[in-house]
Amino acid sequence: MPRPISRDTRLCMSLSGRPGNFGTRFHNYLYEALDLDFVYKAFTTTDLPAAIGGIRALGIRGCAVSMPFKEACIPLLDELDTSASAIDSVNTIVADDGRLRGYNTDYSAVASLLASHAVPRDIRFVVRGSGGMAKAVASAFRDSGYRHGTIVARNPQTGPALARGCGYAWLAELGDEEPQMLVNVTPLGMEGGPDADALAFTREQVAATDWVFDVVALPVETPLILLARELGKPVITGAEVIVLQAVEQFVLYTGVRPEAELIEKAAEFARG
Amino acid sequence: MPRPISRDTRLCMSLSGRPGNFGTRFHNYLYEALDLDFVYKAFTTTDLPAAIGGIRALGIRGCAVSMPFKEACIPLLDELDTSASAIDSVNTIVADDGRLRGYNTDYSAVASLLASHAVPRDIRFVVRGSGGMAKAVASAFRDSGYRHGTIVARNPQTGPALARGCGYAWLAELGDEEPQMLVNVTPLGMEGGPDADALAFTREQVAATDWVFDVVALPVETPLILLARELGKPVITGAEVIVLQAVEQFVLYTGVRPEAELIEKAAEFARG
Repeated sequence: MPRPISRDTRLCMSLSGRPGNFGTRFHNYLYEALDLDFVYKAFTTTDLPAAIGGIRALGIRGCAVSMPFKEACIPLLDELDTSASAIDSVNTIVADDGRLRGYNTDYSAVASLLASHAVPRDIRFVVRGSGGMAKAVASAFRDSGYRHGTIVARNPQTGPALARGCGYAWLAELGDEEPQMLVNVTPLGMEGGPDADALAFTREQVAATDWVFDVVALPVETPLILLARELGKPVITGAEVIVLQAVEQFVLYTGVRPEAELIEKAAEFARG
Repeated sequence: MPRPISRDTRLCMSLSGRPGNFGTRFHNYLYEALDLDFVYKAFTTTDLPAAIGGIRALGIRGCAVSMPFKEACIPLLDELDTSASAIDSVNTIVADDGRLRGYNTDYSAVASLLASHAVPRDIRFVVRGSGGMAKAVASAFRDSGYRHGTIVARNPQTGPALARGCGYAWLAELGDEEPQMLVNVTPLGMEGGPDADALAFTREQVAATDWVFDVVALPVETPLILLARELGKPVITGAEVIVLQAVEQFVLYTGVRPEAELIEKAAEFARG
């Protein structure tokens, strides 16, 4: 049984253009399991300044920020953590006594996964994509000491800009470079999207690489991850990123770090 | 079991200077019992315009408004129901597609209780008090056709003004008028307040009257109500007002009117 909501219950929330259910289910599951007096709810808005003003005025404890608000929210906050200022992108707001501080737990989650999977620093890797999440991923590589990167993106503005910002190379298309790690940060392979069956890299490219990292979180086993597993490649999955970044948000909001086993249960519930 | 909160769950809330727990517990109990996909939470704020802006921007379904925001919120809304415009006081905001409409369910609850208790229209009654709630109560009497009223209030501004607005008499103190109904709309007798043991009317005044109406809702049995019962007088209690006005809010927010038996259970839970 969750504890009854009272006047003292803290509200956490999310703001996104198209709210999903993962965060709401993940956080509420953990609140109940850990008997924390919090409640979580996803929102959308067509008036971001008023929504952020409401977070401040109502004493809402924290807010996850998704597309298309990750950059637009920055001028509305009071301060930025280095995880957000490093990439000019906020995915988490924490309110303390009316002051709003922006974080980016996608960035910290990716950095943390590179370390926990012991991905070698001198690896030659490509990041496919040049949107906001690609910026978080490429910056996490850069700030974790990975120097041999290439941004693969057709967009002739954002692709070179991201590459330049990280000190990496840029290619419009991947040729026969045979990088040691392939990182997908496009929507290719995303459940429910127009390219749910598409692969960001060819079978030959996957066969020739050492590591595959797919940031797409739904389905848990994307076409790219399935192919990598079939070819015996070690993988980092988007499901790991989404859970880890949510855990980091949970810690920022509540000050409590759940045990690994409980996190796994919450993630399973949240995906259901 | 409450249903899990999802992105589709509607949030209702309250705004007051000192949030209580009654509304939060009452509404959430009914949501669960009726399997409605809503959640309710009490808030306070030091920035009313931003809080109301947040209600609008986040698509929050409804908001109860208490002291000291009942009049201050009016210019921030889009329209007023007659229950609120009749007394320039809002205790309920309902949002429809971003438009905020103010209601006053205290006013409608009092009117409804006068009817359900079959209080005769030609009764001579006094209302003690001249604050915002006294305005709602006196206006409900007036608009229900009660013409023989007296406002008893020491405040030489608000007392006469309220009396004038309703077409009633004004007295600073009740003398030997022996009205047929005594209505207390002061904090005298309120649990936890400085005058928890005080009576708004003397034993002699209660003995000489036909009806007693105490708007104080906590405790359920106030000193005045206990005295009236001891002397065999029919009563209307503040507990009835608080429940009925909350039911009217519930209907405005959800479109569902709960059965009387369920309302009683929810009220009992909310008081607990």
